[in-house]
Amino acid sequence: MALSEFELIQRYFDYQPAAGSRDDVVLGIGDDAAILAVPDDRDLVVCMDTLVTGVHFPESVTADAIGHKALAVNLSDLAAMGAEPAWFTLSLTLPDADSQWLELFAQGLFALADRYHVQLVGGDVTRGPLNITVQAHGLVPKGRALKRSGAAVGDRIYVTGTLGDAGLALQQGSTASAGLRQRLDYPEPRIDAGLALRGLVSACIDISDGLLADLGHLLAADGLGAILQVDDLPRSQDFLATMETLGDSGNLSYNVPLSAGDDYELCFTVPPGQGAELESALAALPGSCTAIGVIEQGGGLRCQRQDGSIWQPAANGYQHFRAKI
Amino acid sequence: MALSEFELIQRYFDYQPAAGSRDDVVLGIGDDAAILAVPDDRDLVVCMDTLVTGVHFPESVTADAIGHKALAVNLSDLAAMGAEPAWFTLSLTLPDADSQWLELFAQGLFALADRYHVQLVGGDVTRGPLNITVQAHGLVPKGRALKRSGAAVGDRIYVTGTLGDAGLALQQGSTASAGLRQRLDYPEPRIDAGLALRGLVSACIDISDGLLADLGHLLAADGLGAILQVDDLPRSQDFLATMETLGDSGNLSYNVPLSAGDDYELCFTVPPGQGAELESALAALPGSCTAIGVIEQGGGLRCQRQDGSIWQPAANGYQHFRAKI
Repeated sequence: MALSEFELIQRYFDYQPAAGSRDDVVLGIGDDAAILAVPDDRDLVVCMDTLVTGVHFPESVTADAIGHKALAVNLSDLAAMGAEPAWFTLSLTLPDADSQWLELFAQGLFALADRYHVQLVGGDVTRGPLNITVQAHGLVPKGRALKRSGAAVGDRIYVTGTLGDAGLALQQGSTASAGLRQRLDYPEPRIDAGLALRGLVSACIDISDGLLADLGHLLAADGLGAILQVDDLPRSQDFLATMETLGDSGNLSYNVPLSAGDDYELCFTVPPGQGAELESALAALPGSCTAIGVIEQGGGLRCQRQDGSIWQPAANGYQHFRAKI
Repeated sequence: MALSEFELIQRYFDYQPAAGSRDDVVLGIGDDAAILAVPDDRDLVVCMDTLVTGVHFPESVTADAIGHKALAVNLSDLAAMGAEPAWFTLSLTLPDADSQWLELFAQGLFALADRYHVQLVGGDVTRGPLNITVQAHGLVPKGRALKRSGAAVGDRIYVTGTLGDAGLALQQGSTASAGLRQRLDYPEPRIDAGLALRGLVSACIDISDGLLADLGHLLAADGLGAILQVDDLPRSQDFLATMETLGDSGNLSYNVPLSAGDDYELCFTVPPGQGAELESALAALPGSCTAIGVIEQGGGLRCQRQDGSIWQPAANGYQHFRAKI
């Protein structure tokens, strides 16, 4: 007997985690709701992000990458809070039950889930225009979550990894290098960095809408300003090689890392004078970490070149139709 | 200066609960994620449901009803677990930023949220075909959540309220009575009943896909069967009046409550011989509660008329494109 659409779909999501079911999942998939045990000494951290075709990924992207990215963008939010991923739920709206698409989507999704031992505990699959919503749950020692607020004048501003790769891949389309394309399609949430930053940083945010926009949120939380050294912006070899090919005079090389978004790196602030302990902690961070500026008084965000001149960015971040609730 | 779409939308969801922010919301809307405090003696209960135009509500329904229903169907899942609602997140995908629509949607959503003191703590709003996903979080004393599993042979089967009103409203369209229409557009989650049932029932499920389908899930959890007395199915005065107008010979009057779905009542099983304590607890339930059958051995689900004859239902529940994960 052929499987019904219902059975077909359930098959893909009734997934046994590679490391086994988590001990804190009292009741997982299959009831009206999941039952989860939050340890007494932990706060619960929750976030929810949606991907829509044509807004968050091009029509042409593989289902594997969509599955990865739907979870990755949420894990990135948990990383920004210094939370350890625990569980997630998935709402998948699909135009039809395409088993090849579903298999690839599930592959991308669960490969990332297994890497962080975050377990699918519920959700639903519905017919309609493609829409993928993931809600992720993380755990953090009580009172120790990182927040957007908390920065102060004189704090140094850092970012993890490199910026602008995903944005440049999107601009380059089919001519983008494999390295840039990887950053766009398979962003890596900086979970390990977020965990390592607990107790060291004054504020933290993930960079999804572009550094200027997201750092702007961080500054707005405390009514602060900042000065950024645009020549210090960390850019990958792939990024710089593409810029050379394009014969960029410099502006694109600043504007893309500042504004293009989809980086999923962390931007955080560090109080001055933490000395050796901080330096060694930052040096030990998974991936690199670069100082790019300093928090100032007032509401402005200024960009400076290495010769000391002020440089004016083209835009203030990716202006999409998206409001974070 | 005109508000941007972004600001417009944020305005509607930056809502202060009527009873004030919950004490267990450490950090609500406005960061990368919310921070929530789960009491030491509670399990966390989570569920997620999506509404899509044309699948879960007709194009013509008001935004107020959509806002209500998006939360109500999730609170109904919490009710089925015996959980007390605490927090929810919302992912709203919209074709455009229609302020009148948003205002009505938010009205319907927050009116219900305030009634159960469940607080919006995060989510996002994105551009795309209309799609509404809510994730609800509830709390339940450790180990005391109600489940689909746990029924045993001889347990009596009960349902809360009346069945078939919403299904009949959908069938009747614009000619449906106001009472039936209210049940379809503004389903009331049976939270109070779910809380009252803790410790009394062997298994519980909410009726979203129709009694036969959902009771079928409950039976499947333990490989059981059941016999239902179809003449005992609770039906409202509005329902019976419409049946009389239609000149129904009886079949519709059984099939709609059994299969049409969208009831959001609870179906639960009660071990025999619990005596006076149970009777008084059931009598004290908010809303009515009706015994409709008994759990049997084996995998079948039979329907019986009051003359003892077996009656064959037309369908086994609403067969929509939806798989609960």
